[in-house]
Order: sequence, then C-alpha cells, then structure tokens
Amino acid sequence: MFEVIKTEGRARRGVFTCPHGTVQTPVFMNVGTQGAIKGAVSAHDLKEIGCQVELSNTYHLHLRPGDKVVKELGGLHKMMGWDGPMLTDSGGFQVFSLSGLRKIKEEGVTFASHIDGRRIFMGPEESMQIQSNLGSDIAMAFDECVENPAPYAYVKHSCERTYRWLERCIAEHERLNQQPDCVNPGQMLFGINQGGTYEDLRVWHMKKIAPLPCDGFAIGGLAVGEPTQVMYDIIDAVEPHMPQDKPRYLMGVGTPSNIIEAVARGVDFFDCVMPARNARHGKLYTWNGTINIKNEKYKLDEQPIDPTCDCPACRSFSRAYLRHLFAAGEMLAMRLAVLHNLHFYNELMSRIRKALDEGTFEEFRQTYSGLLDKKAE
Amino acid sequence: MFEVIKTEGRARRGVFTCPHGTVQTPVFMNVGTQGAIKGAVSAHDLKEIGCQVELSNTYHLHLRPGDKVVKELGGLHKMMGWDGPMLTDSGGFQVFSLSGLRKIKEEGVTFASHIDGRRIFMGPEESMQIQSNLGSDIAMAFDECVENPAPYAYVKHSCERTYRWLERCIAEHERLNQQPDCVNPGQMLFGINQGGTYEDLRVWHMKKIAPLPCDGFAIGGLAVGEPTQVMYDIIDAVEPHMPQDKPRYLMGVGTPSNIIEAVARGVDFFDCVMPARNARHGKLYTWNGTINIKNEKYKLDEQPIDPTCDCPACRSFSRAYLRHLFAAGEMLAMRLAVLHNLHFYNELMSRIRKALDEGTFEEFRQTYSGLLDKKAE
Repeated sequence: MFEVIKTEGRARRGVFTCPHGTVQTPVFMNVGTQGAIKGAVSAHDLKEIGCQVELSNTYHLHLRPGDKVVKELGGLHKMMGWDGPMLTDSGGFQVFSLSGLRKIKEEGVTFASHIDGRRIFMGPEESMQIQSNLGSDIAMAFDECVENPAPYAYVKHSCERTYRWLERCIAEHERLNQQPDCVNPGQMLFGINQGGTYEDLRVWHMKKIAPLPCDGFAIGGLAVGEPTQVMYDIIDAVEPHMPQDKPRYLMGVGTPSNIIEAVARGVDFFDCVMPARNARHGKLYTWNGTINIKNEKYKLDEQPIDPTCDCPACRSFSRAYLRHLFAAGEMLAMRLAVLHNLHFYNELMSRIRKALDEGTFEEFRQTYSGLLDKKAE
Repeated sequence: MFEVIKTEGRARRGVFTCPHGTVQTPVFMNVGTQGAIKGAVSAHDLKEIGCQVELSNTYHLHLRPGDKVVKELGGLHKMMGWDGPMLTDSGGFQVFSLSGLRKIKEEGVTFASHIDGRRIFMGPEESMQIQSNLGSDIAMAFDECVENPAPYAYVKHSCERTYRWLERCIAEHERLNQQPDCVNPGQMLFGINQGGTYEDLRVWHMKKIAPLPCDGFAIGGLAVGEPTQVMYDIIDAVEPHMPQDKPRYLMGVGTPSNIIEAVARGVDFFDCVMPARNARHGKLYTWNGTINIKNEKYKLDEQPIDPTCDCPACRSFSRAYLRHLFAAGEMLAMRLAVLHNLHFYNELMSRIRKALDEGTFEEFRQTYSGLLDKKAE
C-alpha cells in the first residue's frame, strides 16, 4: 500500500506499507548484496543508522548459499536477522553484468556463474521462484538491462520481451504467493521500465506496463554510463506515464545530487552501492561536500568526519583515528566508513522528507544539490 | 596495586588497580595491535564482550601512526576510544620477530621497519618513551626475546643484558612519569623474565629481577615453538621466585587449556592473538570444544555457534548464516567470529574466577582443561 501524503512540484512525500513494516518515502535502500552489508556491517547495525529498507541480490543468493537453503532457514529476514522491509532485485542486472557467456532467448537467459562457471538458466519464473524463496517484501520483475549504448532495434526488441517477461512474472508471482509453504505470502512485485536511452521506447514501454497489476514501478537501466542529463531527461519523459498512486523506484542511483534531482522529478525509492563503495576507498560524505579521509591533512584532526553527524563513527572517533585505520589496513576502517556513509544517505533522505513536510524542498535542493557532490573546501 | 583475595593451590584470584580502573584476575587481555582489534572490532565492541584490559603493540604504533602523533592526539586511550585499563608491550618481541636485518648492541637494537625498510633504533629508553607517549596503564620492559632453540651461552649473555636493560627501563620510566606533559603519569611498569628453555637461567634471571621496583612481572619468550610441557615446567620452576604480592603475566599464551594450566601454576594475566586469528579462519570455541564453522555440516544449522553463549554473534545469528558469510567472503564473517572467540576467552576467565571464588577451580580444570582444546563431537 502506498499513499502520497504531500507534494511539492513533482516531488512526493509518501508512506509505503509492506509485510515487514511502514516506509517513509523518499527512501534510500541500503544494499546487503549477499545477505550482509559489505564492510562488516550487520542487519543490527542497519537499525542503528536509520535504514528503512534492506536490499539483497537475487543472483548472488541464488548462487550462494542457494535460495532453497535460505528458504529452509526460514527466509532471508530470519537468516540475516533483519526484521524490517526488504527488497530483492530480480537477478537480471547481475546476469547481464557479472556473469560470463550468456545466451538470451524468449524463455530466459542461460549464463555462467561468476563463481565457478556453472551454467545456470534464469527466466521470469525462476527469478520469481528464487525471490519467493528469499521471502523479501518487494520482488523485482525479471528484465533485460541492455548495455549502453545499444542499437535502437535491439533495445526495441529487448523491451518488448521485457514486457512479455513482466506478464509472466506477474502470473508466477501470484501463483507463488498462494502456495501453502510460501515464506512471505504478502510479497509485492514491482515492474521495471526499460528502453535504454531512447525516450520513445521508454515512454512506449512505460505506457505498456503501467496498467499491469504491479505494486510499484521502477526505472531500470540508467546510471550505466550515460551522461547525467540524459538520465534526468529520461526520468522527465517517463514519469508522467507512471501511475500516481504507486511508488517509483530509480534503480542503482546515485550521488546525493542525483537523488535530490530525481526526487524533484517524482521518484520515491533509491538504492546504490556507491556510498558503501566510496566508504571503502576513504571517500566520505559530509554536509559540506566529500572528503578523502586518507589525506595527510587529517593526521592530527581530532574532529569527527562530520561535526554535525551522529553516526556511530562520528559519535566516537576522530578523523585522525580513521585515517590511521585506513593507513594501517585495519578492517575497522571499512566498517566505520561504511556506517558513516550509509548513515549520511539515510540522513539525507530524512532531511529531504522533512523539507517536503515543511514545503521547503526546492530551497533544500538549491542549497545541497550542487554542494554535496563536491569536495569539501 | 594488586591484591590476592583468594587462592586454591597455587592458583590466585586477585584484584588489580591501575589509572583506568580495576581488573579482576585471572584476566585475558584482548589484543588491538594497531589501536584496533583485527576483524573490524572497535574499543566500544570490546566493552560489549567483557574485555577488561586492551593490549596494543608499541612496535606497530611507533611505526604507524607514530607515538608522537598518538601523544598529540591525547594518547592511545583517547585516540581509539577505550577508557579502560590498557597494556602496551615493549616492542621487543616484534623487533626480534617481524623486522628485517637487526643488530643488537648493549645500547639497544637497530632494525629495519617491516613496512618500508627504514632503519630504526630502539633501546630500553626509546621503548619507555614510546610507551609513555602512548599513555598505557602498564608498560612492559624492553627485553630480548631469544629464538627457540638458542645456545645456552647466547641465552645467558642475552638475559644478563635483559636484566641491565630492565634497570635502565625502570630509571627512564620513573623519569618520564615525572614529566609535566606526561600522558599517563600513573603508568606502571612490568619486568619480563627471560632465559629461553633453560630452567637455571630462568630462575637466575627471575631472582635477579624480583627485588626490582616493578609493578608486576611477566614470563616472556615462551609459546615460541617449545613443547607445551616445557612451557609448564618453566612456569613451575620460575613461579616460586616471583613476588607473591605482584601480578604475574604469561606473555602470548595461549589455548584455553594452556590458560587453565597456567592459572593452576599461579599466573594472573594472559594475552594471545590466537582466538582472533582462529576466528578469522573459522575456528570457533564452544564449551564442548572447537568447531570449524566453514564445515558443510553447518549449512542448515540454525543454532548459534554455542547455544549457551550470549555474545553479539550468538545472540542474533545462526551457524548457517556465519558459514554463508565465510563462504561468501563477507567481512562480517570476520567480525562476528572475532567477537565470539574474544567473548569466549573473556567468559573463560570469568568462569575461572568464579570457580576460584567458590573453591572449585580444580574441578573446573579437570572438566575443561582437556575438553576446550579438542574438536567438538
């Protein structure tokens, strides 16, 4: 269930309810690919840093430990100790980006595992079955995420097929939710818009999927190398055709600025590996822009990463200590940095929601959209 | 200050007080080599798992970030966020085990940094100065830790010099504690017994250092490859010559069984990297013996590592989840495993103390000394 409780321009302040709880939107989902957050961060830690929705990857969990193992363990919520809302992706993106030799047919995709080269088949039904076994609250439809750039004819052909795959996903998802041993019978399904960077294909595809009985709609296949403005233009083109009463999810995006700009264009859900990946390389977010904590200038700096931040790293540790941990190659560096950056993103969303509540989002956007992606002075 | 409050045979139940608090003994000190515990564990986490004394390494911190940097940051307690008792080793062990080409003279040791090959000189005065800058509660005397085996004549020569070095340590330590900018003016100093595996040299050396004004005495240079029984025999030989009213510290030891056996021989303080290192390789301690969590048989095992354990890993996560994290190469595996094993060691010491309090230590020893080092059935 989704309700838009306030708008400012196209930006939406909403509340989303799913089997494991209520989500205030706009929301950034925190990525725990293999049922754990990279950087030694557990589901319990996520609670501490304001995470509302955990996102895990179908492809990875299907390969290891195997979705049937997860089901036997009572589902992913129970296995990883997360009792809040959870989304699983469809596996599609990884099948097309991580795996070796792959062969796409109408039925689905045959590909080689990136772990051991084993040949695996995944189609819409398999993706739904795996996600049903994982027991997430939101399953994502199985789609083809085409490369960028890709020829018009190929993209057209692909997004027609992705439409047919969505119909199959819906049927299989409905069937699975009715099975007596279903892990999470209230699991929802989001459809995914594709069409590469071709606005007409994007709009055609969005119009085709909008009437289907999905619980939300995502825009997929962006932030894969195209210029940022192209991404914004596509959101601008697609958004008017997305149902007003269902959540919109921009997959795999992005920088704080990208998120603010997409919220301004009517997007409600986000996810991205960037804050955790940047953290592991020492690039940390502050409300004055980004800093590289490995820099010599922090050697004796007793301030926290961001003096205004109340994350577990900033509450207790100095920049100088964190810099030392990175220099010394201590895993604790990764953990503290990841906790900080994820907390920052969750806090960013909280401030966006507050601005929307107060009708000051446009002001917030003017102040922070440029600033947050820049290096701090 | 140290008080033995109860004994059972030669085993001692004591209370030790230092500038950052009171320590119940026998105690196992948790190792945070570079000012952080390997496996993404912070000083705050140590509080959660019952750690009483944190131990950091002088050699590592001298090289990185540099003890003068630590002093400028207010000392190691402040830098790493640990407000409890802290011991620093002398650097001696690492100088002799980690560093490249080294040259020992009466003044001290010239050695090559294992990080960048830089030539560094460390003698008794330098070790005291570095530890004073770190601001630990207990500084360890600078000694030579001879290889095992080593010729009698060499060991005799070496432990005579280590005696002279201890006299210099005491003088320098006293001088440093009186400096107006001293980080921790209440810092204590423990002397270290050496003598290789030669009982007569060990006893000679112990008798020489026992009258010196140290706050405690350690037995160093054991658990470096000699048979376990040889280690026990040396403790048996040395212990009668150690002051009754000062704590005894067996350096770098050991397995749960080693610790129980050494407590039975009158030892109060322990430290070892083994529980954390084993954890990182998936070897976990339980009250039924050790398990290898990577084993296939734990794939669907929903029990915690040890059903009787209340560590942060066992409270929330299953063997199956931990096994998955190891298989998937997630850092979280390291963190949870290290938290468990360190908690186990701290709990082991707690149970030893309880048994001593209740006069049932010999019974405890009979039950657990053999069991805990074995594989669980």
